[in-house]
Amino acid sequence: MTSKAVFYHAGCPICVDAERQFAEKLDPRQYQVEIVHLGQAKNRISEAEAAGVKSVPAFVIDGHAYHINFGAALDALK
Amino acid sequence: MTSKAVFYHAGCPICVDAERQFAEKLDPRQYQVEIVHLGQAKNRISEAEAAGVKSVPAFVIDGHAYHINFGAALDALK
Repeated sequence: MTSKAVFYHAGCPICVDAERQFAEKLDPRQYQVEIVHLGQAKNRISEAEAAGVKSVPAFVIDGHAYHINFGAALDALK
Repeated sequence: MTSKAVFYHAGCPICVDAERQFAEKLDPRQYQVEIVHLGQAKNRISEAEAAGVKSVPAFVIDGHAYHINFGAALDALK
């Protein structure tokens, strides 16, 4: 059974790199990946924040936030 | 063709979680993953450091460091 992994980003170079190296490289037999651009989908910022996301790029998997390096603070996207 | 992804950790809870959620979930058709415990393989700390790793857990892929959250500073493992 695949779990869901949500990848939040904001189009920044560090985000694009993380998307290429992780979001596109997770095993599709393990994760169903959803990619969310928080600069464009500002209505999803609160859901990311509620899961503990402080900055992008970040994944939320099983309700836990995983920040990959640092591209932009969530606060800067509001 | 698979690329190599090296996952550096130190056995900390955040490391173990990142290993489970990322190192074990990358698509084996895309990456060949090597898992390195820097607490046990201290001779590999310098190679991680040279690739830009500042803390664990972290991946090095194509010479770039990707830190996932923060478990322990590399300096604390020396």
